Amino acid sequence: MQALHWNGQRLRLDPAYPTPQVEAQTALVRVRLAGICSTDLQIFKGYMGFQGVPGHEFVGEVAEGPATFIGKRVVGEINFACGQCCLCAQGLGRHCPKRQVMGILQANGCFAEFVAVPVANLHLVPDSVTDEAAVFTEPLAAAYEILDQIHLRPSDTVLVLGDGKLGLLCAQILHSIGAPVRVVGKHARKLALLKKLGIDTMQLAAWQPCSFDLVVEATGSATGLQLAMQAVRPRGTLVLKSTIAAEHALSLAPLVINEVTVVGSRCGRFPPALQALAQARIAVTPLIDEIYPLAAGEAAVAHAARSGALKILLHQRP
Amino acid sequence: MQALHWNGQRLRLDPAYPTPQVEAQTALVRVRLAGICSTDLQIFKGYMGFQGVPGHEFVGEVAEGPATFIGKRVVGEINFACGQCCLCAQGLGRHCPKRQVMGILQANGCFAEFVAVPVANLHLVPDSVTDEAAVFTEPLAAAYEILDQIHLRPSDTVLVLGDGKLGLLCAQILHSIGAPVRVVGKHARKLALLKKLGIDTMQLAAWQPCSFDLVVEATGSATGLQLAMQAVRPRGTLVLKSTIAAEHALSLAPLVINEVTVVGSRCGRFPPALQALAQARIAVTPLIDEIYPLAAGEAAVAHAARSGALKILLHQRP
Repeated sequence: MQALHWNGQRLRLDPAYPTPQVEAQTALVRVRLAGICSTDLQIFKGYMGFQGVPGHEFVGEVAEGPATFIGKRVVGEINFACGQCCLCAQGLGRHCPKRQVMGILQANGCFAEFVAVPVANLHLVPDSVTDEAAVFTEPLAAAYEILDQIHLRPSDTVLVLGDGKLGLLCAQILHSIGAPVRVVGKHARKLALLKKLGIDTMQLAAWQPCSFDLVVEATGSATGLQLAMQAVRPRGTLVLKSTIAAEHALSLAPLVINEVTVVGSRCGRFPPALQALAQARIAVTPLIDEIYPLAAGEAAVAHAARSGALKILLHQRP
Repeated sequence: MQALHWNGQRLRLDPAYPTPQVEAQTALVRVRLAGICSTDLQIFKGYMGFQGVPGHEFVGEVAEGPATFIGKRVVGEINFACGQCCLCAQGLGRHCPKRQVMGILQANGCFAEFVAVPVANLHLVPDSVTDEAAVFTEPLAAAYEILDQIHLRPSDTVLVLGDGKLGLLCAQILHSIGAPVRVVGKHARKLALLKKLGIDTMQLAAWQPCSFDLVVEATGSATGLQLAMQAVRPRGTLVLKSTIAAEHALSLAPLVINEVTVVGSRCGRFPPALQALAQARIAVTPLIDEIYPLAAGEAAVAHAARSGALKILLHQRP
């Protein structure tokens, strides 16, 4: 099959990569659309030391697997868990210590014609959800994860730092709770998308320290945490969404002095995201900048890495 | 009056420092005992850029102030708040944005014969509490602050990193809730104190990554956070107690990946600490290593800064 392969140094199209052999409890999914995530770009900077086929955002159809799934349109949770340990028993398979993570840790991903996914990880896509929307299920679930972790009151003031893909999704979800949300970003085009949705925005250049109940750090940059610490009120909450390859170099004393609660936040469960997409409650397709064929994957990744780029997708249509 | 003075470079005894002039709502307290805290040692490394009379742990007797307080034995909360703002209205004067902090921020401290303290900050010391115990009220309140911020279940497993003064107090308080507590430290003498109290201990040399529900980082070192991140379970809680002058240089990605909640924790309210001292529920006096006269303050600070030292006190007896 065609697949993009990252060898730790370079991303290249392999036209004859071995198609995954699927075992019991695993399905082979023919990828229809895959999304390039900032985490993928971090992987190409060394994050997680991953080598193999990257990619973890996809929508596809089941080519091999249980009869009830064959031909069905699916999305898939990215943490492949053991299903046996105490974290799995708590419904926290995404924290299973034995997990593989699609395209990130010891499992090939979806920048390929086919990807192997445990059947337990698959979710059927409602007919009303287009491929272009369904491919956002994974990042949207990651944004919903915030509400799984913290109690957001509608009276809480919220600041989202970063107008990237994840920032735009987080802002919409927090706005949907009824909380007043402001987004600080660099890109007039992206901030305009939010304004159209009724979300307050501010250019980073106009930044000044402030005092929000909740700050979501979604800048994807090591410097975002410093701004976030200046923006959260004493005893407030700071959700850390950026996973970056670089080290932070900063004094964390303000967290102690202001008794801030920092909540690391990663993957979420898919059902709330799929439901939001089915009900068209979150605008995702306006975030699509361009759809490249898989064979043009290197150019697609270069586009995704450009400052200001939003979602770049890869398609496997002939 | 006699006072120790830190000019940003050197700590020196000033035999004729001006005695504080007290205004309405402020009391003049004759200091009986003062404690040297790790925060003081950080101040002598540049933390907070403080200059003046350091010191914020004391027990003394009221020399000037409201008639009902004159001659009474008191301890004092260290954040001098405006009493007017919305944080003060929430009982969070210790986060008042206009606050001064005794011996740390824009207010002289207690390494002196006298210290000026707002009357609102004073607490009477029960007769059953000796001076040597009462001087621990402030750090003990800071340890109790953890229980004010997080919900500790008796079934939670707890790790305290650091066998310094604050670590020993935190460990005792968390142990008192009924949670199984382990303390990791470097000093056999300090760990032996804990063992006598029925608290599990481990030498840092025997350290290996583990999986606790709650980790309290009380090492006072910038490297403590790295160990703490290795010790907390996914979705667990990490309480950050150390305030240090140095920058942290580390990747915070594990906080995101493991969805850890980090809770910065600083000063606490005095009543729970005074009550614990009155009921002798926490062993504090075994933590006293030596009591120096104020005039030997420089030697006392040098002793406090020695590796392995526990609490060093300053007395003002003639």
